[in-house]
Amino acid sequence: AICVPLPRPAPLRRAHDGDVGHRQPGEWGVPRNGGQRRGLPPRPLSDAVEQQQDRVQAQPPMVAEDGSPANMELEESKETEQGEPVEEPAVPTEPLIPSEYEKLAKGCEENPDDFNGWVYLLQYVEQENHLGVVREAFDAFFLRYPYCYGYWKKLADTEKKHGNAQVAEEVYRRGVHAIPLSVDLWLHYLSFIKDNADPEDPETPSRIRAAYEHAVLAAGTDFRSDRLWETYINWETEQEKLAKVTAIYDRILGIPTQLYSQHLQRYDGSRVTEIENMRHKVIESRQEVFNQNEQEVSKRWAFEEGIKRPYFHVKALEKTQLSNWKEYLDFEIENGTPERVVVLFERCLIACALYEDFWMKYAKYLERYSIEGVRHVYKKACTIHLSKKPNIHLLWAAFEEQQGNIEEARGILKSLEEVVPGLAMVRLRRVSLERRHGNLEEAEALLSEAMASGKNASETSFYAVKLARQLLKVQRSLAKARKVLLDTIDKDQTSPKLYLNLLELEYSGDVQQNEAEILACFDRALSSPLPLDCRLTFSQRKVEFLEDFGSDINKLVTAYDEHQKLLKEHESTKRKAENG
Amino acid sequence: AICVPLPRPAPLRRAHDGDVGHRQPGEWGVPRNGGQRRGLPPRPLSDAVEQQQDRVQAQPPMVAEDGSPANMELEESKETEQGEPVEEPAVPTEPLIPSEYEKLAKGCEENPDDFNGWVYLLQYVEQENHLGVVREAFDAFFLRYPYCYGYWKKLADTEKKHGNAQVAEEVYRRGVHAIPLSVDLWLHYLSFIKDNADPEDPETPSRIRAAYEHAVLAAGTDFRSDRLWETYINWETEQEKLAKVTAIYDRILGIPTQLYSQHLQRYDGSRVTEIENMRHKVIESRQEVFNQNEQEVSKRWAFEEGIKRPYFHVKALEKTQLSNWKEYLDFEIENGTPERVVVLFERCLIACALYEDFWMKYAKYLERYSIEGVRHVYKKACTIHLSKKPNIHLLWAAFEEQQGNIEEARGILKSLEEVVPGLAMVRLRRVSLERRHGNLEEAEALLSEAMASGKNASETSFYAVKLARQLLKVQRSLAKARKVLLDTIDKDQTSPKLYLNLLELEYSGDVQQNEAEILACFDRALSSPLPLDCRLTFSQRKVEFLEDFGSDINKLVTAYDEHQKLLKEHESTKRKAENG
Repeated sequence: AICVPLPRPAPLRRAHDGDVGHRQPGEWGVPRNGGQRRGLPPRPLSDAVEQQQDRVQAQPPMVAEDGSPANMELEESKETEQGEPVEEPAVPTEPLIPSEYEKLAKGCEENPDDFNGWVYLLQYVEQENHLGVVREAFDAFFLRYPYCYGYWKKLADTEKKHGNAQVAEEVYRRGVHAIPLSVDLWLHYLSFIKDNADPEDPETPSRIRAAYEHAVLAAGTDFRSDRLWETYINWETEQEKLAKVTAIYDRILGIPTQLYSQHLQRYDGSRVTEIENMRHKVIESRQEVFNQNEQEVSKRWAFEEGIKRPYFHVKALEKTQLSNWKEYLDFEIENGTPERVVVLFERCLIACALYEDFWMKYAKYLERYSIEGVRHVYKKACTIHLSKKPNIHLLWAAFEEQQGNIEEARGILKSLEEVVPGLAMVRLRRVSLERRHGNLEEAEALLSEAMASGKNASETSFYAVKLARQLLKVQRSLAKARKVLLDTIDKDQTSPKLYLNLLELEYSGDVQQNEAEILACFDRALSSPLPLDCRLTFSQRKVEFLEDFGSDINKLVTAYDEHQKLLKEHESTKRKAENG
Repeated sequence: AICVPLPRPAPLRRAHDGDVGHRQPGEWGVPRNGGQRRGLPPRPLSDAVEQQQDRVQAQPPMVAEDGSPANMELEESKETEQGEPVEEPAVPTEPLIPSEYEKLAKGCEENPDDFNGWVYLLQYVEQENHLGVVREAFDAFFLRYPYCYGYWKKLADTEKKHGNAQVAEEVYRRGVHAIPLSVDLWLHYLSFIKDNADPEDPETPSRIRAAYEHAVLAAGTDFRSDRLWETYINWETEQEKLAKVTAIYDRILGIPTQLYSQHLQRYDGSRVTEIENMRHKVIESRQEVFNQNEQEVSKRWAFEEGIKRPYFHVKALEKTQLSNWKEYLDFEIENGTPERVVVLFERCLIACALYEDFWMKYAKYLERYSIEGVRHVYKKACTIHLSKKPNIHLLWAAFEEQQGNIEEARGILKSLEEVVPGLAMVRLRRVSLERRHGNLEEAEALLSEAMASGKNASETSFYAVKLARQLLKVQRSLAKARKVLLDTIDKDQTSPKLYLNLLELEYSGDVQQNEAEILACFDRALSSPLPLDCRLTFSQRKVEFLEDFGSDINKLVTAYDEHQKLLKEHESTKRKAENG
């Protein structure tokens, strides 16, 4: 079976209320009760993000708290009394799983970044039409590519075809949870609900209305959410709930969307309920909202035009689109409400899910509002989309360390190193984490281990220098530091860095008392197999040392003589090289 | 009047005895009593050079011990009872000195390295034919260019023309003392002596013979000394002193000279004194000496052929001639006797008087044999020929310091700095001399003075760094060192070296305790007007510092962020530059 560590869901979602009122840039600093939010009591900003999380978390959990796929195979999985999942292969000893499947699945397990491998696998299991295998393959796929909305529909269709309507609905729920801004997926989901609803059941309309509300709360502030709003209005119109139609129009008229002007036209054509003597006042007030909204739309129009690929794709985005996203985000951060900014980030991070800069920008933005929000952005980025990108992992670990979660930080760095071994920046961050928290022995052990497992002499020497510096400067043991460098020089005689650091170490003490050691270090470098130009530099520095600190004019004169000889050798080598 | 410091003569002279016996290469190491020296008792090598000096010093001193021109104007100068010279202008208030002379003399005083200026001056004074002025000009000239043998003859001729035969002879004596290897000058001198000798005086032949002996001792081992030997033989033949002729032949037959084979032929044609029954034995022994000599000549023939300009000239020598001298010297050092080596150095240092490498090579060679010899080589080189070349002055000062003559070393460096001010290597050597002898305050004062008189900010900063390092590492005052660097940074904010050294200083203490100072130093550099690529390096190092030693993960993350921003700025600057 494909084994990919299962992430917990990212509970942070875009703004769920209708608060798209127009604020001036920088207005954020004024008390919220002075704002223009309608119908909701004033609340502090940072609450906005957390309430979104509460909202999401108040829904039935889609995975168990420990991160295991509790209800991913809702119908087939068995759970213990405590709700913990029991490991059970989808199709236990099924001889029907052909070896072709195993081959393709193994390929995906080994190269999870090869998107085409997944496409072949999913095509194959759909042809084979074996539900257990289909589920296993799709579930593994969604762990890595939850943003491919079309595949959620495919899986739901397959479940439906097998008569598992409830499982199909659950697939949709998982889908819109994973990619709540996908208007397309919501529309498929809503069609599915309507098609499968029992028309005789008196609860059906309110169930469908709840689903529409869920959809517009999740995706209705998206600039391209017009189709969703339109089907909602159409459905309420079919239900002949004209008061509700009016209420929806009142909401959409305040949201900057692509087709903002059509809504007012359609609304003007449809309004008949209204009491005649209120008509003028009502029109006036709506016109004001519309005008305001039109201004907001116009500010964003060019940015929205620049978004050529709003959906997820593994292929790289064009540079112009990336910079369009960046500028759009900066604009919204400068001018928009936090709710708009968050929605834009979420949209951006569908199209740009594979670009760590946008995740980091998002996390940085959220720092002002919600620690939990930041954490979830990092977690989502690192565990789902960017499992191999070191920078964002380092930031995540730094964030957890800032929060005092040392064990968590340690774990993040260690896991990253297991996935992408051999990165110096990661190992050094592990070392510095331990050092900052007083675990000097562990820091030393990590450096020693890195030295021992260095891919080549240069890597080993790199860590030796780091270890020696720690021993000297943090652990204050010159003798241990010197030994590390000398032992390493024995094995790697052509690394100038080693000699330079040994020199620095000897200089760090009393240079006059250490003259013999310092000269020994120079002579070690000068008699080494280092290249001539490198030895020339050491020779120059030896002369300078003897001039600045040496006790003996004879040694200075001799060193100067030897330096001149080296210089001549160097010049004649250069001349020979120039003359071919 | 032209005022040039008068040097003391270099008393070291080439071998003066007839010891030109053939030795095998490396034979020098065997006990001398096993050697082939004829007619002289064995003596240790180092004595050879000292005895030469004794010989020279045993002659009447040509200048007073204090270096003043005691007897340069033998007839006209007045001396005190103590033999000290009295300053007296040659032509005291003479209105005959025309302003043209003063102009030319002033030019030479100001640009003593302009040889042509001297040539005009000497031409001018000869035309004017005013003896006082002629003497003054020639004497000033000889202080700087004693190797121009033709001018010694010119001055002697002028004295003679004015009827001052004794002064003319003294000029010759000064000349051959200054350039004892000049066969030409010796020949002029000997002609002069013979022409001016009193034929009635019974002492005359022995006086002339003594002069010839002096000449061949001084120049007779020169490869091109044949004309000197020939005139000596001719003169003794004229005197009909055939035993003496034979004795001279015996000497010249053992000396490798250009015309070595002619001597044997001429000798074979002239020998008549000899007792018939000894004839075969004598011929045999001389033939053996000749054969040996022929071998020695053949080894040196190519080198001698390579010497195209054996005389002194201010124009540069061709590179091939310089390398020929070097190879010839190396050959002779490897294969010849010390006497031959010394003669070759003296010959070389006529042709190559303006090349300090040969003087240094000579001094180095003499180190094995004679401290006094080394001293005189340095003194001659530095006070006469190379008054502005720093390297050889530094070596001379180092030599005197090695000998414990600190005051002498101090004086050499100080004088050099007066002649060629502003050379860092000289100032630093003055500093290190004081430091080595415990005069830390003087060392500090010399550096401070160099800072204060720096020609530009970069020079001042250079010395500031040196001073700070001395204060930190030698005087062990971190506070004083820091102040020097900070004060200098205030005045020169674009020197990366200053910031780097301040960093090094702060690192030298307890890096963890000094974190604030270290970060302040980084920030000082980062907010300075340093160029972007330079600030980038500091920013990189700041990140590394915080990773390796910093206490706070937040500072590390922030520094990393800022480094990324700088990187981007740098890349965009680079791109812009690439796109013109």
